[in-house]
Amino acid sequence: MTREPKQDRSRATRLRLLEATIDTLAESGWAATTVGVVAQRAGVSRGATQHHFPTREDLITAALEYMFDSRMDQVRDENLDVVSGVAHTERVVAGLIEQYSGTLFKAALQVWTAAAADPALRERIVPLEERFGRVAHRAAIEQLGADDSDPVVHRMVQATLDLARGLGLADVLTDDSRRRAEIVRHWAAQLDAILVDARGRQASGRTAG
Amino acid sequence: MTREPKQDRSRATRLRLLEATIDTLAESGWAATTVGVVAQRAGVSRGATQHHFPTREDLITAALEYMFDSRMDQVRDENLDVVSGVAHTERVVAGLIEQYSGTLFKAALQVWTAAAADPALRERIVPLEERFGRVAHRAAIEQLGADDSDPVVHRMVQATLDLARGLGLADVLTDDSRRRAEIVRHWAAQLDAILVDARGRQASGRTAG
Repeated sequence: MTREPKQDRSRATRLRLLEATIDTLAESGWAATTVGVVAQRAGVSRGATQHHFPTREDLITAALEYMFDSRMDQVRDENLDVVSGVAHTERVVAGLIEQYSGTLFKAALQVWTAAAADPALRERIVPLEERFGRVAHRAAIEQLGADDSDPVVHRMVQATLDLARGLGLADVLTDDSRRRAEIVRHWAAQLDAILVDARGRQASGRTAG
Repeated sequence: MTREPKQDRSRATRLRLLEATIDTLAESGWAATTVGVVAQRAGVSRGATQHHFPTREDLITAALEYMFDSRMDQVRDENLDVVSGVAHTERVVAGLIEQYSGTLFKAALQVWTAAAADPALRERIVPLEERFGRVAHRAAIEQLGADDSDPVVHRMVQATLDLARGLGLADVLTDDSRRRAEIVRHWAAQLDAILVDARGRQASGRTAG
């Protein structure tokens, strides 16, 4: 029989709490996601939970940050090869948009919406939202192999992430996946043409310079 | 001294309740929007409120429907002249996107998010969401003078409304209006090129046929 070292057990407990928080938010909503409910779902004592996360807000913001960062690590691992072409663009756009249709988005939506009517929570969430936005934008640019200094590319990659957020919202109450797939296909074709144009502008700039 | 007829007074009361519901949802969130709070804000007795709206869900769904329909009537009145050209497309896209950044969107977001974790509420909200989606799409097609039977146009007008929803969500916690104006300008240029292409396809189809 092996025993986990104390530090590993503590880390595993923390992780179970963070995952239980995201699942509870997505399934049961903001009001139902109390420290007590999450602790019970994770099978962790109330005392141990409060040792890791003194307040409900600490638990919820830590859960969003941890899940977002792990998702981004995953995304970066998946897309090592950047090749051009509409098939690649479509694959990247589909991947970006899927980020906004899962459990993490549904959990975040509960927190964002609660923060809209709660100034103290808003103060904690706004810097998180800004960081998530910056990281997601940078990841999208890298995966697309795009030039963010081109103003059209910059804005259309932002628009792609805004679109992803809107499609995520459309998927909250009903399964919107079939329509979403059609939107992805058409949007990716437009975005790819924009990237091709931008590469053309860059190439002719180099020739002229 | 004039006295309003009874029917007009009743209609005015109803309207005050609907407006107070939207304002309370947008400012104070789902949990705080009770029949008692709305009645007090509207200056209407609890009894009179329950005469108009027997349950909280009746009040909230009626408020969303009334506000959405009045907004759509307004939109239709504003855009009588459909002219082509990127300036017109930009005006229409800006108008559509503004629909999703105001009090009505913020109120609806509270209800949509609560419905995500409440199956009974979800059952009432899903048909509403479907109707809002259809009506908003038809209004967008009319204002753009676009041909919805063209599959690229159909999907890209849908994407415009999804983008609008995502931009609305980005505006909930912080004022995103400057960035939004840039996105509108760039996306409207893309959408206008798509509409011009579609008109070209339609014209050559007519010639060929």
